[in-house]
Amino acid sequence: MDFDFLRELISPAYTKIVMLVMDGLGGLPLEPGGKTELETALTPNLDALAAQSALGLTVPLGPGITVESGPGHLALFGYDPLQYRIGRGVLEAVGIGFDLEPNDIAMRGNYATVNESGVVTDRRAGRIANEISKELSKLLTTRIEDVDFFVETVREHRLAIVMRGTGLSAQVTGTDPLKNGYPPLTIRALSPEAVKTERVMNLFLERSRQVMESYQPKPPANTLLIRGIDQYPHFTAFPELYSLRAAAIAVYPTYRGIAKLVGMTVLPPDGSSWADEFTALEKHWNDFDFFYLHVKETDLAGEDGDFSRKVKVIEEVDRLIPRLMALQPDVVIVCGDHSTPAALKGHSWHPVPALIYSKYVRADGVSEFGERVCGRGSLGVLPAAHIMPIALANAGRIMKWSA
Amino acid sequence: MDFDFLRELISPAYTKIVMLVMDGLGGLPLEPGGKTELETALTPNLDALAAQSALGLTVPLGPGITVESGPGHLALFGYDPLQYRIGRGVLEAVGIGFDLEPNDIAMRGNYATVNESGVVTDRRAGRIANEISKELSKLLTTRIEDVDFFVETVREHRLAIVMRGTGLSAQVTGTDPLKNGYPPLTIRALSPEAVKTERVMNLFLERSRQVMESYQPKPPANTLLIRGIDQYPHFTAFPELYSLRAAAIAVYPTYRGIAKLVGMTVLPPDGSSWADEFTALEKHWNDFDFFYLHVKETDLAGEDGDFSRKVKVIEEVDRLIPRLMALQPDVVIVCGDHSTPAALKGHSWHPVPALIYSKYVRADGVSEFGERVCGRGSLGVLPAAHIMPIALANAGRIMKWSA
Repeated sequence: MDFDFLRELISPAYTKIVMLVMDGLGGLPLEPGGKTELETALTPNLDALAAQSALGLTVPLGPGITVESGPGHLALFGYDPLQYRIGRGVLEAVGIGFDLEPNDIAMRGNYATVNESGVVTDRRAGRIANEISKELSKLLTTRIEDVDFFVETVREHRLAIVMRGTGLSAQVTGTDPLKNGYPPLTIRALSPEAVKTERVMNLFLERSRQVMESYQPKPPANTLLIRGIDQYPHFTAFPELYSLRAAAIAVYPTYRGIAKLVGMTVLPPDGSSWADEFTALEKHWNDFDFFYLHVKETDLAGEDGDFSRKVKVIEEVDRLIPRLMALQPDVVIVCGDHSTPAALKGHSWHPVPALIYSKYVRADGVSEFGERVCGRGSLGVLPAAHIMPIALANAGRIMKWSA
Repeated sequence: MDFDFLRELISPAYTKIVMLVMDGLGGLPLEPGGKTELETALTPNLDALAAQSALGLTVPLGPGITVESGPGHLALFGYDPLQYRIGRGVLEAVGIGFDLEPNDIAMRGNYATVNESGVVTDRRAGRIANEISKELSKLLTTRIEDVDFFVETVREHRLAIVMRGTGLSAQVTGTDPLKNGYPPLTIRALSPEAVKTERVMNLFLERSRQVMESYQPKPPANTLLIRGIDQYPHFTAFPELYSLRAAAIAVYPTYRGIAKLVGMTVLPPDGSSWADEFTALEKHWNDFDFFYLHVKETDLAGEDGDFSRKVKVIEEVDRLIPRLMALQPDVVIVCGDHSTPAALKGHSWHPVPALIYSKYVRADGVSEFGERVCGRGSLGVLPAAHIMPIALANAGRIMKWSA
């Protein structure tokens, strides 16, 4: 929905909305005619909530399209993922919990090996050991002119690199030839505003080579390859768009990062489990109007192809629902950012079950939360980006429109 | 969906997709509370397939809009029918099985009668008899300069006329005043590129008048009216868009023509019935990734208002489903290009039942294929153009998207 249109209709209210995202919630049966993970799970609390909710299936981006968590979450937050894009470099930095600032330039990096002719012989530097990688990253973190270069090991050869300083631009080419057998490229400015960036990046790369060369014992990596150079995305801020004080409670850094990109307040997790997320929710209940809670383990179990673990995670989340309902939220959304069926061991295109509970929702009256009942639900099969406007309406936060 | 976006995500696979289009499949009950044609038909094989399929209702173009077969098929093939248009002249030529070539100009024509003052007194030349019409059309088929004019009788006064030659353009006005009481117009070029077309068309029309004048016995027609002058449409080719070797198997020429316009390979029908289409499917199974099969008789029965014949056609198609499933296709789509309820004796705006079968589909688990169960299906009420992306995803032919 057009943000300018929506924003004009937003009206403040003393109501509270909770969006509980179970990552990769949607599933598939293991056998034809069987039940999905969510349908298999014993979820008395979600079932009771479903009975008072409108049910539906959300499509994150478009028919048949499988998405990553980034666009999947943007859609749930009401942003068209094709229009609001988070670049790979930014996602990489956000994914390791790097606290990006609005003027930062983020990129992906690789430790790599070049031979004496300057040709890349291994883009992954033999999957360099984590300890050496982290040690090198510390040494490569530096300041050139007034620009800070933060180098962070993601895993082995994979790096997130962030530049912070004045007058920087993402309008530069990378150095990664993307396959072995070619020399690394040189950073080049693609616009006049990027001349300084070109200069400091080339200085940084030259310094990095010298550092790796003098490192003892000689590491398998002797160069840095750079790609996916992105600006911090400047999205319309979620709290401003919807006039909501919005908080994110997520144990996993990627999700705190995405929430921060859309302007939510990221609350410190009170621990490392999703039960701790509910504790944080209780603690901050009076301070915000909107809470985003994230459960990662449903997706991880799906990715591992572990049907019964995904079932178990859903059952454990179900046991926490009474704590959420005890807070008497006005609107509750239980949903997923995409499907991750254990049967496929990965993300999939299948629409994702969703429920919207509120006093004013037209409840389907079905005491079950699962793919099939949601497929017959009164929300229908709807774009994930429609969830927020419907939730806001149920929270008494959208005025009547007239031309 | 945006073709550039989709094309970037297409990945090749060794999977096979069959789209079985029953023309005008959607129907209506004859009496309130009764069953539709599809619901009445005994379809044990389609019912069994439905149990393993996702069900839905497709909307060919938009809510309340009734379409012809052309746009109805384009939507099923994934093309937005409002953006990808097949002109009337082209459809007329394609409909009679004329083998259009990419540089041809096609138009609709009428045999008509003008009086001595040159005013059209009958735009249909008294619905001239088919035999005389065909005889005249043979005589009017000619060559002017380097341009071939093919004149083909569609029925009575209705003609398809095709120009083939170099330097032609569709940027010319027609001659049909569209009602009696006015003189025919003169062909006029609307752009400098159309000057040659204007000249040869006016020469052709002058020659046509002379031929009709000298014909004995004097026919009711003494002039030709021209309208709907179209170029061969240049669509993004279906096989290139989806990276599929695509074959069309259709007894009726219109449907072979539409498939050819989108770049499918048109297989020679092995006979004149839809059972022969299944024989052709078996014969060419190894040579293509995508097969489009077309059954016309559902639509014809609907147009005739013959409810029980439409039921019978559906039952006969049902008996052929085991031959299709014996080939072990990865994805099967059973659908229609529009509704043609016998109760309305014509095409209608009603959404059309559709099923998508695959090993990876989230099946609705309903052993029935009919309008009402499809209306509660997990595909929801969806644009017909969404069917192809969903089918491709189920065939493992769409990669995960990330920004």
